[in-house]
Amino acid sequence: MTAPEITDVLHERALRLLQEDASKIEKLIEVQMENLTTRHCPLYEEVLDTQMYGLSRQVDFATRAGLIGELAGKEIVSKLERNLAVLYEAMERKG
Amino acid sequence: MTAPEITDVLHERALRLLQEDASKIEKLIEVQMENLTTRHCPLYEEVLDTQMYGLSRQVDFATRAGLIGELAGKEIVSKLERNLAVLYEAMERKG
Repeated sequence: MTAPEITDVLHERALRLLQEDASKIEKLIEVQMENLTTRHCPLYEEVLDTQMYGLSRQVDFATRAGLIGELAGKEIVSKLERNLAVLYEAMERKG
Repeated sequence: MTAPEITDVLHERALRLLQEDASKIEKLIEVQMENLTTRHCPLYEEVLDTQMYGLSRQVDFATRAGLIGELAGKEIVSKLERNLAVLYEAMERKG
């Protein structure tokens, strides 16, 4: 492989890994949204916060390591943050 | 740059970034060790645990992304874990 090809592979792999991790959190949010009316697990919020922190550290690292662009990283995190905000709002309304 | 040179640069940068982050946690541990006899901040343990979690997620990501070897990543984390264990033992003894 040539130099540009190798960096392409590394960049794509990094982005794919981050998106996979983001999808897992996305799933956690969806599950909690579905369970909103039936049951509420008090640890869920803490688990989600911890997962979000972990992902944001990975994204930050990937950005600093030059594997992904700053904007791509921010998009991954802020998309999840918006979903989380919707969840927390729904939880609040349910009280 | 040639392909091997580019991957070398990326690998070295990734390792350096992780070692820098590890050094920051190392410093936090040292400060707490020095303050052991004078004052005890109850939030310190939680901050250290959070930082350790963040670093372990970064190391895990860097390993999966093929930026560092599994062994190199494990060494960074386990060295800090040993230092943390020493700190927690000293805190326990102090009561």
